[in-house]
Amino acid sequence: MTKTCLLAAMLLALATPAMAQDEPPTPDSVVAAAAPEEWQRIAPEDLLVMELAPAADGTGRKVVIQLLPPPFSQPWVEDIKTMARAHWWDGKSVYRVVDNWVAQWGGGDPELGMDPGPLPDGVVSPTDSYMIGFNNMGSTVKASPTLTDHYAPETHFEQGFAVGETIAEQMTWQWPVHCYGSVGVARELAPDTGTGSELYAVIGHAARQLDRNIAVVGRVIEGIEHLSTLPRGTAEAGVYAERSEDTPIVSVRLASEMRQPPAYEYLDTSSDSFARYVEVRANRSDSFYAVPAGGVDICNVQVPIRRAE
Amino acid sequence: MTKTCLLAAMLLALATPAMAQDEPPTPDSVVAAAAPEEWQRIAPEDLLVMELAPAADGTGRKVVIQLLPPPFSQPWVEDIKTMARAHWWDGKSVYRVVDNWVAQWGGGDPELGMDPGPLPDGVVSPTDSYMIGFNNMGSTVKASPTLTDHYAPETHFEQGFAVGETIAEQMTWQWPVHCYGSVGVARELAPDTGTGSELYAVIGHAARQLDRNIAVVGRVIEGIEHLSTLPRGTAEAGVYAERSEDTPIVSVRLASEMRQPPAYEYLDTSSDSFARYVEVRANRSDSFYAVPAGGVDICNVQVPIRRAE
Repeated sequence: MTKTCLLAAMLLALATPAMAQDEPPTPDSVVAAAAPEEWQRIAPEDLLVMELAPAADGTGRKVVIQLLPPPFSQPWVEDIKTMARAHWWDGKSVYRVVDNWVAQWGGGDPELGMDPGPLPDGVVSPTDSYMIGFNNMGSTVKASPTLTDHYAPETHFEQGFAVGETIAEQMTWQWPVHCYGSVGVARELAPDTGTGSELYAVIGHAARQLDRNIAVVGRVIEGIEHLSTLPRGTAEAGVYAERSEDTPIVSVRLASEMRQPPAYEYLDTSSDSFARYVEVRANRSDSFYAVPAGGVDICNVQVPIRRAE
Repeated sequence: MTKTCLLAAMLLALATPAMAQDEPPTPDSVVAAAAPEEWQRIAPEDLLVMELAPAADGTGRKVVIQLLPPPFSQPWVEDIKTMARAHWWDGKSVYRVVDNWVAQWGGGDPELGMDPGPLPDGVVSPTDSYMIGFNNMGSTVKASPTLTDHYAPETHFEQGFAVGETIAEQMTWQWPVHCYGSVGVARELAPDTGTGSELYAVIGHAARQLDRNIAVVGRVIEGIEHLSTLPRGTAEAGVYAERSEDTPIVSVRLASEMRQPPAYEYLDTSSDSFARYVEVRANRSDSFYAVPAGGVDICNVQVPIRRAE
């Protein structure tokens, strides 16, 4: 490093696309141009609506979670639905928030002064299986554009969710990955200790090292800011030091059991528009961008989701 | 996908390392074992201390930023120091917060009801150069472990900062990348419109598409939670709708001008301990982890930083 200099403006000029007659596409413009049939309705039985106690200024705080649909739903998803139907989370709390990591909620730990109480009838025993396998060897059909990855041999999207994939024993194995907003099943050290009654959402950089180590069961599709803006916990592992710091959960309901459920749709991740969206995200050439990245990581491809009628 | 089944526990068992006599290393244990000489003191003139108005409950809110050191400092860094010495940011505000994106502060825009006023004497004109070049072709010395990347031909660490690297015209070009906590120079559409008087910090998943498009000038090393927990703005582009929602900046000072400056050191990114730290982060085998990732992305390798005496 004998000489330091600034990059000649020339190089930058080379990287700047010539001004086109038409404004280059943006991720938003691609999504706006998607055909109506490229949008997929999210089933109301896959939507979990968590209402937190209002903020100090009275603002309502609703967090909407899309649970993984079949066949990607993991054994916990059915248990989570059972717990929601039993109103198990009502009166529980968000008790742990770690910056650039997770916000966690549920019944909590008696050792921390919480009283989770017994789980509702019908919740099955925990399991430590958190990959889903398909014997689709030989199939060349891909559900979405494929992205290289640091943490998995391959990543792509299935039914609107980012998944990692590997091949073993002539089977294709897939697993939902941890991106911003992903919701997973908290557990203790042993892999079979998560029941689904304690959940977390990622509120920072993709926590991909958790992939295949903790089960992802869904993602926040609306209201993540009500979790990501919560004060960070100061006790061990980011748990709040005092129970008075917890954010109470008013209710958690399946949209399918609500009188006026919110409705959403996502851009079909096997659609042409989604493929174009990924391409444009990887190669921004609209007015703000002088140097297109030429690539994108799976967690930087947020699946477009919108409210439905 | 004719058949769905859960991964046999056997596969997981294969991936689980045999219980060792000694507990496997963790990122924390590697850092704790680093030799004193592997820690580098951060120069006080590279530390920017921003004090925000206290939170509603009276809690102090101090955000400490490490500016890029020479030769990685960009033209803006000297201007930022000039503005700090002139107390230019005192009385300004954090006026824009976008979830999973950035928190932004400075004098703001008169069109938004803010009065930035003139910049202090000595601030040079904006420039649109934001890469640093070295004619170190032929050198095989690497400053830190090298990581593959989606956004750059290569990434590694230089003087404690994550950088992208490419080779062009027989020169090595490097640029600091956007990770969680990175601080950059806000600008308008034209690349030469950033003065350094408006800054942002990344508060979500690594905004790598901004690399080489906006200049990174440093990173938050303490107090990022005072930015990441701020309410999200509801007006255009995440600006607060009312100026009363802004978070006032009490002061921004260089540590070198403070009577009782905070002091920090970082783990030398060219040290053996740092190389081991990266390796362990990519291959977690301690008790919580059943399946080591086998890889890590550059923004998931947080450079260890600690308070110094």
